[in-house]
Parts: sequence; C-alpha cells; structure tokens
Amino acid sequence: MRIILSGYGGHMGREVRACAERMEDARIVAGVDPMAPADDICVKSIADCKTEADVIIDFSHHSGTGALLEYAIAKKLPVVLATTGQTEEEKALITEASKQIPIFLAANYSLGIATLIDLVKRAVALYPDGEIEIVEQHHDRKLDAPSGTALSLFNAVKEVRPEATANCGRSGQGKRTQDEVGIHAIRMGNIVGIHEVMISTQNERISLKHEAFSRGVFAEGSLKAAAFMVGKKPGMYDMKDMLNA
Amino acid sequence: MRIILSGYGGHMGREVRACAERMEDARIVAGVDPMAPADDICVKSIADCKTEADVIIDFSHHSGTGALLEYAIAKKLPVVLATTGQTEEEKALITEASKQIPIFLAANYSLGIATLIDLVKRAVALYPDGEIEIVEQHHDRKLDAPSGTALSLFNAVKEVRPEATANCGRSGQGKRTQDEVGIHAIRMGNIVGIHEVMISTQNERISLKHEAFSRGVFAEGSLKAAAFMVGKKPGMYDMKDMLNA
Amino acid sequence: MRIILSGYGGHMGREVRACAERMEDARIVAGVDPMAPADDICVKSIADCKTEADVIIDFSHHSGTGALLEYAIAKKLPVVLATTGQTEEEKALITEASKQIPIFLAANYSLGIATLIDLVKRAVALYPDGEIEIVEQHHDRKLDAPSGTALSLFNAVKEVRPEATANCGRSGQGKRTQDEVGIHAIRMGNIVGIHEVMISTQNERISLKHEAFSRGVFAEGSLKAAAFMVGKKPGMYDMKDMLNA
Amino acid sequence: MRIILSGYGGHMGREVRACAERMEDARIVAGVDPMAPADDICVKSIADCKTEADVIIDFSHHSGTGALLEYAIAKKLPVVLATTGQTEEEKALITEASKQIPIFLAANYSLGIATLIDLVKRAVALYPDGEIEIVEQHHDRKLDAPSGTALSLFNAVKEVRPEATANCGRSGQGKRTQDEVGIHAIRMGNIVGIHEVMISTQNERISLKHEAFSRGVFAEGSLKAAAFMVGKKPGMYDMKDMLNA
Repeated sequence: MRIILSGYGGHMGREVRACAERMEDARIVAGVDPMAPADDICVKSIADCKTEADVIIDFSHHSGTGALLEYAIAKKLPVVLATTGQTEEEKALITEASKQIPIFLAANYSLGIATLIDLVKRAVALYPDGEIEIVEQHHDRKLDAPSGTALSLFNAVKEVRPEATANCGRSGQGKRTQDEVGIHAIRMGNIVGIHEVMISTQNERISLKHEAFSRGVFAEGSLKAAAFMVGKKPGMYDMKDMLNA
Repeated sequence: MRIILSGYGGHMGREVRACAERMEDARIVAGVDPMAPADDICVKSIADCKTEADVIIDFSHHSGTGALLEYAIAKKLPVVLATTGQTEEEKALITEASKQIPIFLAANYSLGIATLIDLVKRAVALYPDGEIEIVEQHHDRKLDAPSGTALSLFNAVKEVRPEATANCGRSGQGKRTQDEVGIHAIRMGNIVGIHEVMISTQNERISLKHEAFSRGVFAEGSLKAAAFMVGKKPGMYDMKDMLNA
Repeated sequence: MRIILSGYGGHMGREVRACAERMEDARIVAGVDPMAPADDICVKSIADCKTEADVIIDFSHHSGTGALLEYAIAKKLPVVLATTGQTEEEKALITEASKQIPIFLAANYSLGIATLIDLVKRAVALYPDGEIEIVEQHHDRKLDAPSGTALSLFNAVKEVRPEATANCGRSGQGKRTQDEVGIHAIRMGNIVGIHEVMISTQNERISLKHEAFSRGVFAEGSLKAAAFMVGKKPGMYDMKDMLNA
Repeated sequence: MRIILSGYGGHMGREVRACAERMEDARIVAGVDPMAPADDICVKSIADCKTEADVIIDFSHHSGTGALLEYAIAKKLPVVLATTGQTEEEKALITEASKQIPIFLAANYSLGIATLIDLVKRAVALYPDGEIEIVEQHHDRKLDAPSGTALSLFNAVKEVRPEATANCGRSGQGKRTQDEVGIHAIRMGNIVGIHEVMISTQNERISLKHEAFSRGVFAEGSLKAAAFMVGKKPGMYDMKDMLNA
C-alpha cells in the first residue's frame, strides 16, 4: 500500500512514519506539510504532489479538508481523515465527497478502543440488570473530565440500555440506582490513556479494560484503516465497519 | 418456574435455595437429599417426589445420575446437570436421555465465565498478531495450577488461533514467542476466583477480567439455565446456547 | 485469652465467634445480648455476667457504653470498643474511664486499613511533589460517597502534606492542581471494601491497595486488638499503637 | 548542581539530559562519550574534561570505571555509578575509591522501586503469617523471567521472613505452603516495567505496585542520587541511604 501522508512533519505524522516503517506492506511515498521538512518526498501543498499512491492519511488540520478532498476526488483515492474539529461546512464537504470516493472518519483511531466499545455492547446486552461503572485515567494536563472516549463508552452502553444515566464523579449521600453509570476520571502523571468498563451483579463482575502504552496506537489504527480502505466503494466508513469486516 | 432441587441439603443446594428466594419467578417446590433435612418439601430419594414441577436442578452427586434421568424422562422434565466427574457409563446415559428430554450440562455455571469466553474469542479474532497472557487467582487450598477454567480460556483462544501454545508458569531464559500464551496461577487467601485474559500489541492492551464475589454465582447460573430450559425440545444444551439465545 | 463478647447475637458478634474458634489462644467465655440467643454462655445484661475474663470486646450499640464501662472498671478489665456513633456524653465517659482501665477505640478494625494508612504516609513523605488519587469501591447499598475510610486515607495524606485538598468526584473543565487529591467512589455489586491510594510523578506510579475479602476482617482485627490489650496500663489505645508495638 | 555526564550520547545519557532540563537546580556542564556527538560541552575522554563540577553521573560502560574513578579522586568529586556488570577487579577499585570519595551504587535507579522495597519490608513484618505473591510485567523482548527486580523484591521479603522460598512460575498439583512466594512473569507488548507484591490473610489483601511509565524514571533517580551526594563524606551509598535521609 502506497500512502500520501498529510501532516507529514507533525507529531502524529512522525508516529505514522515510524509505524509504517515497521510494517511490511505500508510505504509512505509522499508527504504533505506547509512547514515541509527538508525531505525529498515531502511537498508543501497537496496540489504539488505528483506521486502515484493508493490511499491518503490526513493528520494535518481540518482547515485543509477542502483542498485535500479536491485532490482525492481528482485522483480517485480513498481518504483516512484523522483530523478533528471540522466545521459544519467542512462536514458537508466530506459528506458530499463520500459520494465519489471512500472516506474513513473516526473520533479515535485506536483499534483497541473500537474493540472495547464492541465488547462492552455485547457484555451489557448479556447483563440487562447489571450495574455499570466506567473508570478512565489520563495525564495531568488533560482539561476535560470525563474524557471524550469515556463518554463514547457510556453512549455505547446507552445504545443497548437506553434507560442508562451518567453520574460523572459520584459524591454525596444516597444509594446508587440500577440504571446509574458512575464515571470516574483519574488524572495523574503522564498516562497516555486507560479506560475500563465494569459490569456487576451481586455475585460477580466483568471488567473490560483498554490501556494505550504510547500515542503510536493512533498511528497504527490509521494505517489499518488505510489498508482497509484500498479498493472500497465510495461512501463513509468508520471503526465499526473495519472491525466487522 | 417450579424447581425440584436435587442435592437440597448440600453446600450448593443451600446457595441455590438462597438465590431462588431472591428471584420473583423461581420457586423450589421439592428437594431431594439422601440425608434429607427436617423440611416438609424434602424427600430422601427422587423416586419419592410427588410434586408437580417444571425443571430439575441437580447439584447432588454424579452417582445418582441414572435414577435422576429415569425420573425426568418419566415426568418429561428438563434437567440442569451441575454435578461433575461423570463416569463414561453415566455420560452415555446422559446422551441417551437427551433424545427424550432437554438436558443442560456445563463445567462452570457462572454466566460471567461463559460471557468472558465469548468476549475473549471475539477479541482474539480482532488481534491476529496479539500477544496473549492469562492470569488466574484462587484461594490457597486449590490443588491444581492453572485452574480448569483458565485452561478453558486457553482453549477458547486456541479455537480462534490454532497455533497458540500454553506456557504454564513462565520461568527461565529466552524471549517469548508470538504464539505462546503465558498462564499464571496466583494462590492466596480466600479468593473465590478471578480470571483475566490480556491481549497486547506493542502499543496497546485489552484486558478482560471476571471476578466471582461469592460462590452464589454458580447457583445463580444454574437457575438461569433452568429458566432457559423450560419448554425446550429434547437435546443437549450448554452455556453457549443460553448466551446466544 | 478469655473474652466477654458484648453484641454476642448480632451480625458482627457471630463473625467474632467464628474467628475466635479458628484461633488457638482466644476463647469467648461469656456473651452479652439483650436479645440473648438460647445459649448457656450468653446473658441479657452485662451486669449479670459472672464469668472470669481477660478482656471485653463490644460490638453491641453505643447506647450501652455506660453500663459496659461501669462493669469493666469494677472488674479492672481492658475494653475493645467496636461500636460507632458515640454521643458527646458517651465520649466523655470513655475518656474518663480510660484513666482507670485501658480502652482500645478505632473507627475501622481492619488491620489491613491501619497498615495501608501507615504505608501511605511513608510513601507520600517520599514523594513531596507526587500527584495523589484515591479510589474506593463498595457494595451498591452504601449511602455515603466517598467512604469514611477513604476520607481517613485522605487525612493521612494531609498529615504529611498539609496543603493537600480533596476533590471528591472530579468532573468538568480545568487542569488538576498538584495538591489536589482526586477521590473516586465506585458502587456496585456486593463488594465488601476496596481502597487504593496512587502516587505518581511524570514517570512512575506507586499504588497501595487494600481489599477486604469478607467482613470477618473486622472481627479478626478486634481479636488482635483484644490480645494486644491484655495487661496494658490504663489509657486510650488505637490501631497505630498496635501496629507500632 | 553542576553535573559531568559520562555516557552523554547514549540512550540513557539522552534521558538524563532531557530530565535535567526540566529541573531547576540541575545542569549538565560537561559530557563524556568516546563517540562524542558534535556538541560543545562533550569530550571523548574524561581526562580531557576541564569543566568545574559538583558531581559525576556515569551511564557509560563498566570498562571505563578505572579512568572515571581516577578523575573523580583527583577532583574530589562524588560519583553516581549507573553502569552494570562490573568485573571483580572493577568492584575492588570502587571499594578502594570509596575511601577517598563518596560513591553511589544501585542496581536500579528508580526511586519508586526503592520505595516499593522499603514498603514491602514494612508490610511483610506486619503480616508474619501472610501469604505473599509477586507479579511482574515487562516487554516481550526481555530474556530473563522473573526480572532481577522481582528477585530483589523477593530478597526484601526474605530479609524480614528468612523462611520464605521462591516458587517461580507455579504449575502442577499440590497446595501452596505458607512460606512459598509465587513469582509470576508476564511478557507482552512494550511494557516498561510493572512490579506488584501482594500480601494476604484469609480475609484481606494488601497490594503494593510500582509502574514505570517511561525509561526516564531511571534518569530521574540518578539525578536525585546526584543531588543527594553533593557534600557527602567518602563512602558507599545506595538507594536505601537516600530514602532514609
């Protein structure tokens, strides 16, 4: 698989390059970065890219979405979009483009979190009366509590059990209700990300946990998404499609 | 659901009675125990049982299997067999009986362990190159290491990944191989049973854990199996059938 | 050691009796319980107790404190007070009595929690800049969050690091401060009690955890306190004294 | 504190430099490396070093021990030795040198592991009849199982409880003995290092765990040792001395 990597010089760009080097069948054939490093495969703008490729991975910035999609449509290339914070206009562009090319879009490119969400839904369905708690751990610089991924896990619970309600940071008096899902946010040190969903009856407990050892896990996920996208029909794809493939 | 409970006076019989009392739709209508307690619903031999019922749960001893099945066939009752250590002859009786009545047979009646096995298979399939380790914890009187349930978990891994090999109690020199599954047996205190399967890539780890808080979990599972069996066609059933129902 | 057990027929009284039976050098020689069971060593009121003994353990109710201390002073017996919720008047009685007899008083008779508090103080002192989080887990009937023991652990942290502030149930926006101690209360199933204190720098984390497998742990602690008290001088004693003995 | 860093260009040398940059009161004033990088503070041999300093940290190779000590004695500088695998001859040189300068020597420069060892000894002493198990986790390239640090933890247990015996990788039939310490070695992914010591009675369990988030923890420990050594008298020092200071 020949990859054009947008956001080539950035933090995640470097992670994707390091990860691709360890894979047999992935090769970064071109990079795009406005602050292009002195590197013979990197150009400043996607329009300048002349290299043949099979897929584009985009870890740059959402503001470049328009130009990127224009190029991808012209070349008939699938795109893995790993930027975040798209405006409504950009989102409309993405939907429109997906009629002509296949586009992969995910909030979190960790395969493990996608797996966790899948397993949680299965487990919750098997324990209709189970009591559920979610614990997440992140580094001390993180601003939001609970994490977006913890909320995604709660939403996965809610899909199966619509009456579930979130209790973020339990404190004070009163018995827990059966449909209450306690969500707890630990903040300390340099933890990349740990998420655990626990389901319990009076007699037993099932705990499903994901730990990211390094930020490379997101690079790995984007490369797997890229491999999954080669040869796909136009349309929108996400982690669930890849997992169920 | 009206239940005849064989093994009424034993340790697990008491657990089943306590658990049934907390359920709305389960009622022990008769007990069978050779050392019958002074209790107006308990008889010494199943042949003496005159009560109408919907299902039999058997936590007595495998030596009574023949008489129990004879009674169940005569009354057209489904049976949940929770004894262990059946002889080959008894096993043949069970298979034969399952042509006339529905029989549920499981090595472990914890719903949680059945769920864990199901989730583990799904997760292992999603990580074909993952490194897998299993840790189990039991009380200090347990004689075998690793536990039978840990070996069941390993067999679940092997179903999905036939090249997996068990390394029970890693010790010594040498790098782990990719297909090696380390199995670790912790023994201490009065732990009822904890089983954890971990699957890892270089960058992330998924851990699936089951903890039994009390031995009541096996009673609970047998009652769920009983409810599942009411109205079933003749045949053999196990935890997987119940989980997928 | 010959023990008078007040609260003989109650839940904790039964735990103490079961635990004493497994010990070589502890014997319950008399019981006190207003709803005395039909048992030849149990009387309804402590004033009726004629048996020679070495120590009194009290798991009854704080309203009986006065009569109990009166008896103990008359017989010159050490007392292990394991009731809770004493009024100010009763507290004054205890202080006054401790001038004549040795009295052991603790909020939590688990030896393990006392050990945990000791280890936490030592660890916090070694990490003056460490970030600290506390996680506790209890059964779903518990009314208060966080638990009293979690607050005791926080107070232990504060003894060593007076600038520490508690954040019970972190939720919302904003970076954690260095002196903030996050306290998280998980409620599910039939968990007896789990407490964990984590101390972290950017590069490493130390976690100190206590799990109670059964409520028997409090019986065990009270019996150890009783053995510790035999032969002591008048005064007030607590878990710390026993640990440092 | 002004530091001469031997092993300046190596993997751990880079970690020490990164860590020192984040500290207020530590400054690398000179580097030594035979394969000196193009850097104006680095020389190829310690004999060429002309810079005034307060302490030397050595993360180079044990073969350079002689020259390093000679320089340190001439300049009256304390040394933090973080190389491993010294020959008997080199060990004799170290002992001899410690009569003239202060030398810090440790097998593991993680402050957290030193803390863990300290806490484990305290906890084991409080539970003379406790059952003890050790679990360690490392990356999949590690050759030895169990880890050297797990064995150090076992030795710490043995100091307090001389009858303790190690059972590395429990497997097979038979009840655990009370003095048996099970040691379990998990190998997977890119785990930097996790060590946990668990102590249990029938009713409760205390678990003491250390996790290294990154290899920087060893750099951090060596810098703390360096700060501790400034101004010390000649002699041998180790992590325990620093912890108890």
